Amino acid sequence: MLTRNENGGSGPALPARIKRYRFPEPVWVTRPTMPPLEKYQEHLRSIWETRWLTNNGRLHETFERRLGDYLGVEHVSLFCNGTIALVVALQALRIHEGEVITTPFTFPATAHVLYWNRIRPVFCDIDETTFNLDPARVERLITQDTKAILPVHVFGTPCDTEGLEAVARRHGLALIYDAAHAFGVRCRERAIVASGDLSVLSFHATKLFTSIEGGALVSHTAAQKERIDFLKNFGFADEETVIGPGINGKMNEFQAAFGLLQLDVIEGEIANRRRLTAVYRHELAGTPGIRLQEDLPDVEHNYAYLPVLVDPDAYGMTRDALYDALKSLNIFARKYFYPLCSQFPCYMSLPSADPKNLPVAERVTRRILCLPLYGTLEEEAVRTICAAVRELGAAR
Amino acid sequence: MLTRNENGGSGPALPARIKRYRFPEPVWVTRPTMPPLEKYQEHLRSIWETRWLTNNGRLHETFERRLGDYLGVEHVSLFCNGTIALVVALQALRIHEGEVITTPFTFPATAHVLYWNRIRPVFCDIDETTFNLDPARVERLITQDTKAILPVHVFGTPCDTEGLEAVARRHGLALIYDAAHAFGVRCRERAIVASGDLSVLSFHATKLFTSIEGGALVSHTAAQKERIDFLKNFGFADEETVIGPGINGKMNEFQAAFGLLQLDVIEGEIANRRRLTAVYRHELAGTPGIRLQEDLPDVEHNYAYLPVLVDPDAYGMTRDALYDALKSLNIFARKYFYPLCSQFPCYMSLPSADPKNLPVAERVTRRILCLPLYGTLEEEAVRTICAAVRELGAAR
Repeated sequence: MLTRNENGGSGPALPARIKRYRFPEPVWVTRPTMPPLEKYQEHLRSIWETRWLTNNGRLHETFERRLGDYLGVEHVSLFCNGTIALVVALQALRIHEGEVITTPFTFPATAHVLYWNRIRPVFCDIDETTFNLDPARVERLITQDTKAILPVHVFGTPCDTEGLEAVARRHGLALIYDAAHAFGVRCRERAIVASGDLSVLSFHATKLFTSIEGGALVSHTAAQKERIDFLKNFGFADEETVIGPGINGKMNEFQAAFGLLQLDVIEGEIANRRRLTAVYRHELAGTPGIRLQEDLPDVEHNYAYLPVLVDPDAYGMTRDALYDALKSLNIFARKYFYPLCSQFPCYMSLPSADPKNLPVAERVTRRILCLPLYGTLEEEAVRTICAAVRELGAAR
Repeated sequence: MLTRNENGGSGPALPARIKRYRFPEPVWVTRPTMPPLEKYQEHLRSIWETRWLTNNGRLHETFERRLGDYLGVEHVSLFCNGTIALVVALQALRIHEGEVITTPFTFPATAHVLYWNRIRPVFCDIDETTFNLDPARVERLITQDTKAILPVHVFGTPCDTEGLEAVARRHGLALIYDAAHAFGVRCRERAIVASGDLSVLSFHATKLFTSIEGGALVSHTAAQKERIDFLKNFGFADEETVIGPGINGKMNEFQAAFGLLQLDVIEGEIANRRRLTAVYRHELAGTPGIRLQEDLPDVEHNYAYLPVLVDPDAYGMTRDALYDALKSLNIFARKYFYPLCSQFPCYMSLPSADPKNLPVAERVTRRILCLPLYGTLEEEAVRTICAAVRELGAAR
């Protein structure tokens, strides 16, 4: 039974011994890594001198080049946000009708960009361990209308890229990765964003690597990059030539300056999150009904998120009850990703959205919870959060 | 005959007496109004303190409210850019099929947002004096498939809003204004952005009023604004409810801070542009073959652009030759808007795109040229530009 308790949360009233874990200030699920203000102000002064605010300015050019160097890829196009990058990715490959197979366990943007490109999403079930698309299940959903596969490296865990590539090649399908979570992830010493035909990164403020809002589209050839750069600028190839119905996806100089400075702090941020992830894993190890993801062999993880699965029977409390209880302790976890995209009113009537077809995703979405994780979070705070999680379960 | 001359321009070689008008540094068609750097840095410090970079931050909230106050409208939604605002405007009114009547004499975004909403553009000819849609011609193009009218207040000159409203009302059509150029314009003491069902502003760096990139959607009711705000944030009504396939149209805190400070300098910027416009009008008055727009009765203009029409027979030189000649003098005019949207490869095969249906627009697009205009441009520079324009014509 849910009651509004004295701490303002809408969860069940908490036993007194758990209230001692309450934080005086909210602990958010994430906070952005801020570069040194003084360095940002130096870039600002140059913007004020040149009065060049957007449209391929000097900072944009520098950030785009240095980002490619950092990621180890040659062709990168910056965007105002990751959603518009994904909209343009489909347009760049001329995918504007038919079906695309994708995962329901993702942020809404993944499905919505299909809508904007006139494409019917076909939702496919996910793998129990990685929460990513399962190539064998993908292959069974291919029809005459399938144009592409749009997998997501959820929480930065690499998809089975070899399996997906084999399926795509066998059926002549395009393969576009939503790599919004996967900044800096490497698999067998190769950047995960080098996989597939195109990969899209998000630099939203809630992401590991941020340019305020922002995103990037990684392509494989100079010609692809040129087409993408035209399309994100209304289709302009030059002042008088418009190659197609483009959009405004341009990143401005203020975002580029922020992104440029993030490149100097990102390694430290990843190291801090790796350290805190180890604390979470240690502190929550053996907690009945709480399952954490583990590192995969041959993968350089980015530790962008701290997802846990809550098995209500073993834990003694549902994910929703745990979420509410943590909230009442000023710990703001997030239900990434609940509900499934396939359960949004705009997609739920699609045949592929039937929960019977998506048993793993349906189970994961009801059990998943992302706990707070960001570089400046104190280890002591992580220990307190873990103690609260342990005792809340034991208390039932 | 076009030759590459010694100044690097691709226009005809210029007589020696005209070369004395060459500027040592490029004079661009526009430059953004920069607010005081120190004030911007104050906002930055607050962003660094709160680490709140986007998603309805404090600066966003303040800018949205103060912008509404300045414009004299109650419901404003900020956007990352004007194009995405226009994409969402159509979605907010559930216009996602059929035809929309619009002008071909506009920036590509106006037509492209119809593409993104699955709508067939129907191009309608414009008025000779205002360069805006002609209501009588609009009415003749209405069919069973027409869903809306999408006029543009080109160069900030108000459309015949009463005429267009009468047509829209008679036929039960939505009326969405692309007011990208019309910041601050008032007509019979009423904000022009209060017209129609929705109006969209652009705050791109090239605009009179800028938030780096940016835009806004003006609506008429709290319910409309709420729907728009959901749609620009992926359709989220709350953390767990997605009302439809939205997009990411969010303006971030860095843009909002810039826009907020622009509100303090915009009156001065308009006054400066008004003064420089008067200089242009005085200096070019009576130049054969050069026509400038005049102020309209009952209109508070914003003097955002300085468009001139070049009649090649009377002037002695085509618009393109004048553009090239000015470029070789380091004067960067712009052919706003050439070519017509109806001449882009993606639209030219539409029946309404036939040049025979658009005689006024076809003539205007071949003759139009926007000369440099921005608040910090020196009066002396304007006089030099005008002298060059006068003598170039007389020289032929």
